[in-house]
Amino acid sequence: MVYLKDIPLEEAQARFEAALAAAGLWGVLEQEEIPLDENARGRILAEPVWARLSSPNYHASAMDGLAVVAGSTDGAAPQTPVTLTLPDQARYVDTGDPLPPEFDAVIPIEDIEALDENGGLTGALRTPAAIRLRAGVTPWQHVRPMGEDMVATELVLPAGQQLRAVDLAAAAACGHTRLAVARRPRVAVLPTGSELVAIGAPLELGDIIDSNSVLLAAQVEEWGGQATRCAIVRDDFAALQAVVRELAAAHDLVLINAGSSAGAEDFTARVIESLGEVLVHGVAVRPGHPVILGMLDNGERRVPVVGVPGYPVSAALTGEIFVRPLLARWQGQALDEPDTIEATLTRKLTSPMGDEDYVRVVVGQVGARRWAAPLGRGAGVISSLVRADGLVVLGRGVQGAAAGEPVTVRLLRPRATLEQTILVVGSHDLTLDLLAQWLSRHGRRLVSANVGSQGGLVALQRGEAHLAGSHLLDPETGEYNLSYLPRYAPGVPVRVVGLVRRQQGLIVPPGNPQGLAGLADLARAGLRFVNRQRGAGTRVLLDYELGKLNIDGRAIAGYEREEYTHLSVAAAVAAGRADCGLGVAAAAQALGLDFVPLFSERYDIIVPMEFAESELLAPLWGALQDPELRVEIQRLPGYDVSEMGRLIAEVG
Amino acid sequence: MVYLKDIPLEEAQARFEAALAAAGLWGVLEQEEIPLDENARGRILAEPVWARLSSPNYHASAMDGLAVVAGSTDGAAPQTPVTLTLPDQARYVDTGDPLPPEFDAVIPIEDIEALDENGGLTGALRTPAAIRLRAGVTPWQHVRPMGEDMVATELVLPAGQQLRAVDLAAAAACGHTRLAVARRPRVAVLPTGSELVAIGAPLELGDIIDSNSVLLAAQVEEWGGQATRCAIVRDDFAALQAVVRELAAAHDLVLINAGSSAGAEDFTARVIESLGEVLVHGVAVRPGHPVILGMLDNGERRVPVVGVPGYPVSAALTGEIFVRPLLARWQGQALDEPDTIEATLTRKLTSPMGDEDYVRVVVGQVGARRWAAPLGRGAGVISSLVRADGLVVLGRGVQGAAAGEPVTVRLLRPRATLEQTILVVGSHDLTLDLLAQWLSRHGRRLVSANVGSQGGLVALQRGEAHLAGSHLLDPETGEYNLSYLPRYAPGVPVRVVGLVRRQQGLIVPPGNPQGLAGLADLARAGLRFVNRQRGAGTRVLLDYELGKLNIDGRAIAGYEREEYTHLSVAAAVAAGRADCGLGVAAAAQALGLDFVPLFSERYDIIVPMEFAESELLAPLWGALQDPELRVEIQRLPGYDVSEMGRLIAEVG
Repeated sequence: MVYLKDIPLEEAQARFEAALAAAGLWGVLEQEEIPLDENARGRILAEPVWARLSSPNYHASAMDGLAVVAGSTDGAAPQTPVTLTLPDQARYVDTGDPLPPEFDAVIPIEDIEALDENGGLTGALRTPAAIRLRAGVTPWQHVRPMGEDMVATELVLPAGQQLRAVDLAAAAACGHTRLAVARRPRVAVLPTGSELVAIGAPLELGDIIDSNSVLLAAQVEEWGGQATRCAIVRDDFAALQAVVRELAAAHDLVLINAGSSAGAEDFTARVIESLGEVLVHGVAVRPGHPVILGMLDNGERRVPVVGVPGYPVSAALTGEIFVRPLLARWQGQALDEPDTIEATLTRKLTSPMGDEDYVRVVVGQVGARRWAAPLGRGAGVISSLVRADGLVVLGRGVQGAAAGEPVTVRLLRPRATLEQTILVVGSHDLTLDLLAQWLSRHGRRLVSANVGSQGGLVALQRGEAHLAGSHLLDPETGEYNLSYLPRYAPGVPVRVVGLVRRQQGLIVPPGNPQGLAGLADLARAGLRFVNRQRGAGTRVLLDYELGKLNIDGRAIAGYEREEYTHLSVAAAVAAGRADCGLGVAAAAQALGLDFVPLFSERYDIIVPMEFAESELLAPLWGALQDPELRVEIQRLPGYDVSEMGRLIAEVG
Repeated sequence: MVYLKDIPLEEAQARFEAALAAAGLWGVLEQEEIPLDENARGRILAEPVWARLSSPNYHASAMDGLAVVAGSTDGAAPQTPVTLTLPDQARYVDTGDPLPPEFDAVIPIEDIEALDENGGLTGALRTPAAIRLRAGVTPWQHVRPMGEDMVATELVLPAGQQLRAVDLAAAAACGHTRLAVARRPRVAVLPTGSELVAIGAPLELGDIIDSNSVLLAAQVEEWGGQATRCAIVRDDFAALQAVVRELAAAHDLVLINAGSSAGAEDFTARVIESLGEVLVHGVAVRPGHPVILGMLDNGERRVPVVGVPGYPVSAALTGEIFVRPLLARWQGQALDEPDTIEATLTRKLTSPMGDEDYVRVVVGQVGARRWAAPLGRGAGVISSLVRADGLVVLGRGVQGAAAGEPVTVRLLRPRATLEQTILVVGSHDLTLDLLAQWLSRHGRRLVSANVGSQGGLVALQRGEAHLAGSHLLDPETGEYNLSYLPRYAPGVPVRVVGLVRRQQGLIVPPGNPQGLAGLADLARAGLRFVNRQRGAGTRVLLDYELGKLNIDGRAIAGYEREEYTHLSVAAAVAAGRADCGLGVAAAAQALGLDFVPLFSERYDIIVPMEFAESELLAPLWGALQDPELRVEIQRLPGYDVSEMGRLIAEVG
């Protein structure tokens, strides 16, 4: 069995580049001529565009008016008009008409008096007998001289330019009809693995949907290539070898996903070895390290191949790091440096020494501070790449970064969208997803981090969020949230507004097989509970109610197993990992589970006064008053919107 | 005749929006379901994507290894190993395999000792009889719990999201096969005008190449629409009316270009009036004011129509201002705010009060200062939109901005490319175009402003450019440039490097019909000369040589007519606007003119020491040593590269 040996990224890139260069494949692949008016947009120029014609290609009138000799208007003034006769001394021209060669200026039609044969004013502005002027013109006034825009032979567009609408128009205007562009690289995307099933095929336990081939093919197209998505090949050396051999004959690059690791069924490296050469197996990059870089060789042609790791985030980053620069090179395109911004890390990051670590982050501007909040770091969590605003790269030799440390974020979204981001930290509620969807239609992006109700208040205190969602019950008063503010967010003046009332209860498997009726049943022997994390409002509620029943949490099996959202609790029950958990009805319904309602509680949003009247949050207040959104939320089981938008208190 | 009355932009937008809303056309047009794995990239989601399945959809092993019950490994340590037998106490799993329900953790294969039936070590890692462990595991270690990535029912992508590769992968992974996206709006682009000829058709005097329909169609596609480029319609009311009526039946939007002004042959407004309603004719925007916004109505359907002005820059801005937001609206897409940066204006701008004025600028970071240098403002100068890095908008009520004033630039290029921009100001030489092309292949953009040799030195002194091109002859010494430095760029330490030697002479029509042989002929009666602007090296040379001949400039007809580049001088001669001008041979050749060589002169580049060793300029020094570039330059007539790259002096 071959074990991976991760080598540094630069070394991997250098080996790949050297092999490509040796094969004559480290430059523009080929060029082709295409008509500039058919799908040329987005293509990369292989040759510069030099103006063939000047534009305008003659002296053109810049106005509807009368062409004259400027000198003949000398002395014209309100009291001393000059009269010129047509067609010898003046001639009508439309905007864009060539200036007749005997004239050198144009007088706009608004500035003349048109005269008939008898010297009287006429409305026949285009065909008067004469014109009277009360102001002179200078030579070349209202004339667009030949070449004003482009002079024949000058450089209009450099090679390597990605063609935009204005580029195409300029090329057309200076006499081009076809343009030499780089041929689009042909890239095969080959999904492999006996566990893979095609999108839409029925799923059995252990099947994995082949979403990576969609990812890689879309990346390739985004970067100018033409992707061929192949049928899934099972883990079979001979079958894989045959397909890869065939693909290499018809493509410029082959991406094999996955089988790039060193497991028993990971054939990719051996197949590449059998058809050419493995240059690199293992790169010190996270996520993504089991990358293979190789070169296929059928004796006539050498074709680069990348063994792409199977985890989706690893696959996406492998595309970014190895495929994108190659496609750019093949099209002669200078890759722009990524746009970066500086931000402050919300929490500590650790990173394996020696790896280049790509950490997905959400970026938010909260008051004067710009925060980068790390998202899930698992290589399998593609949703965190979907949600990410950018990447923080912890380089080789960096073991991590402390909370509060400044970091550079490579942006994955336009900078301006970051200013539309509302950061909500705290307890999770399904309503936040509906709110996020509503806000996305109103120019805002709601990004939520689920750290529990207490965590949200602490985040407000640290200035890390625009608002918090909280449902902290005060056991003394039966009131929500208010008594916790001085403890967790001292000194932060806030507005507390009701969002929903919702039922909390036991999430149980369909049919409630254990016949659970209340919290008292949790201590039952053999029952496996799944809990929420400390600081979560649901946890506070549980502990409060257990206290009333005199039940010790330690007596409940699974009390230590903590999940961070209602849905995760429900997922644990749905998966049979637990027999029950405390959460909201909607989470149970979402996963087809049953629900034993126990309590009704209030979930509020808590907004620092600093942001309450900000333009950023203005749409939020609109959302809370929107009848359609209310209807949608009310449709969730166990939800009540009667207190939605109600001002509970302004504190501090 | 209808005269335009420009109304403020906001008012025009409001009227258009109100009419669209009244027709039920101010929202998503229609949605359609498309497979997510075929050309879905770039489309706009019409419905949110909620997870249908959790991902993973079962508890999955995160490693190749052995599934175990965590509790059974308690106490395992280097000196007290624990042995577990297969298949009851442990079972082999590959990465991604479902965790068998009786187990709750995975031990990576690297961390076990595989044993055969006899308790001896075996290489059969997947099928040992037992395994020995020297460290325990905790529950759920190396397990990806169900829903780790996405939990069924949660919001994965909001409606309005433009689909990226990772979005498609996430949607596939959570169980989707098709996505509801906004239908692409169908937009007709109708070029009109008797002076227009199709791209590639033979040109006669006064013909204008129909480049605008390429521009508008490419813009529409860029913004998600489907463009139909129609055949050119001549200026004929009935023909235009018939075509527009037909287009309205099959499209969501009709763009008519041009005829939108108020000239005799501008039928657009009347055609729209005859088929519906003109809402706006004339918007106080520059360039672009003769815009028509209207609504066609055949009794069954109302279809918006835009009369797009004919000047290409006006057409492009009309697209940006009116078409882009409409297409975004129709696709339910939130339009990102443009990325903006702050910069300092290099020169004064004036703007008509009451107009919203879009000024194209080049942006350069020169040392600590970021400059915005205004480009040609003519509505016909599409090349300036090609070259522009951004737009400075002088709003209504603003009459201009002073040199040195801070301005906000709406970027048209990725921010990072601005840092790769080398600003060269000064005298123009054709070599700069070749150098620009070379540098574009080496990660730099060379942007040149032609203000003459002296102007370039002054710009260095002001810190407005990274280098200047100059060929200022010192009449006293016969040396170039050095003696001018203390005068125009005092206190700026610079490096002076040779670029080319080139011939200057008279640019004359083919065959030299006037038989010109030298400067002495310029004073000839009836001869029309075209001059270069004051401060240009060629002008200095002319005045120096005229002085030697005792010829007074004022005796030369056309001495006051100033052009800013060699090519413009040649263009003036080619157009018959002048009989000769002084310039370089290459400019004459470029336009098929003849050349009377008179002098050889040196053209240097002058680089402030502050930038001489910068990373930005490093490729420039490479260019000057590149043999291929030398060959290319040497190919220009009258050029000599023997001094290219030679250090002439370091001064100051």
